[in-house]
Amino acid sequence: MTLTKRFSFDLDAEFGHKDVTPAVGTLVQESGVRNGIACIQLVGSTGAVTTIEYEPGALADLHSAVEQLAPAGARYAHNERWHDGNGFSHVRSALLKTGVSVPIVDGELQLGTWQQLIAINMDNRDRTRELVVVIVGDR
Amino acid sequence: MTLTKRFSFDLDAEFGHKDVTPAVGTLVQESGVRNGIACIQLVGSTGAVTTIEYEPGALADLHSAVEQLAPAGARYAHNERWHDGNGFSHVRSALLKTGVSVPIVDGELQLGTWQQLIAINMDNRDRTRELVVVIVGDR
Amino acid sequence: MTLTKRFSFDLDAEFGHKDVTPAVGTLVQESGVRNGIACIQLVGSTGAVTTIEYEPGALADLHSAVEQLAPAGARYAHNERWHDGNGFSHVRSALLKTGVSVPIVDGELQLGTWQQLIAINMDNRDRTRELVVVIVGDR
Repeated sequence: MTLTKRFSFDLDAEFGHKDVTPAVGTLVQESGVRNGIACIQLVGSTGAVTTIEYEPGALADLHSAVEQLAPAGARYAHNERWHDGNGFSHVRSALLKTGVSVPIVDGELQLGTWQQLIAINMDNRDRTRELVVVIVGDR
Repeated sequence: MTLTKRFSFDLDAEFGHKDVTPAVGTLVQESGVRNGIACIQLVGSTGAVTTIEYEPGALADLHSAVEQLAPAGARYAHNERWHDGNGFSHVRSALLKTGVSVPIVDGELQLGTWQQLIAINMDNRDRTRELVVVIVGDR
Repeated sequence: MTLTKRFSFDLDAEFGHKDVTPAVGTLVQESGVRNGIACIQLVGSTGAVTTIEYEPGALADLHSAVEQLAPAGARYAHNERWHDGNGFSHVRSALLKTGVSVPIVDGELQLGTWQQLIAINMDNRDRTRELVVVIVGDR
């Protein structure tokens, strides 16, 4: 069986983030799926989804790492063409990617105790972002 | 239900790329799947699949970013063993990964308006690359 | 149909790795799935799963690349809060991610000849790690 849901939430510019584990976990429970896959996507080309220990230190460290990968203040060909100043956002999003898929076993998302699903707004302005989740599997 | 398809296309050496969104979107339509997952893989260890706004600026910026992550001219242990000169290709591919999975809702791939699926040849020579797509879900 | 399996194995600190392709391939055969998806996750926030040519040179090069992305000896906000010294592990894991999904076509994982599935322990101590695999598809 398959269950889909779309979540919408506001995230701050430049690494505004949200722990989406509770929302996805609730959807898994609602689906009644015992074994399957949760496929999660933050729609758009300036965001990202990954997993991390959702605590301020690790989040700050990841922010620093993506700032090194694609510094906000560097020169980007995208900016020279479109003048929207978010060239760094596109690069960060393409490197980190906008989705993950997580196994479901015995009705539980297979994440560690200190491992959360995080949605990140990499854009240079506040954004209302859409997270789409599809649960596929057997009840 | 499940539908699979294999696409084959030529890509230039060192970041030859192709927007594969139309091909994958057509396959989703052919499958008749309303809700499910499209699992996409560029076969091999010197390519990558990700999403990005498919415009020359963002593509050039991503190319620069992966050149920084694993410079083509640096020293690689892989090259010293195998003398094929594509050590940088393997590192870029392992970091960026060779596949993505995208949710399908109401028969549509859940991508943003300016978000395309891109296949990249990271190898140091022109390659005919194979993209495999599996659609899983409910009609 | 859906088949799940949990594998457990010991990995050395700081980039201990294992080629998990044989284990996942055997599970695909056991499942009898002809066309579908294998969703693979190394549970926890200090590990990673990706694909690479599983040979010592490429592995050493990937290790060097993640050391550049998040040097073990750098200053991390996570370490200052938790004093466990594995801030670099969390960053590397969040960037590389803890899972991949691979298409299955005609009963075969769609990987290249020189492309293997690799589980990596990014933590700063030896760990017994759990790999969860879900096979979803049609027989």
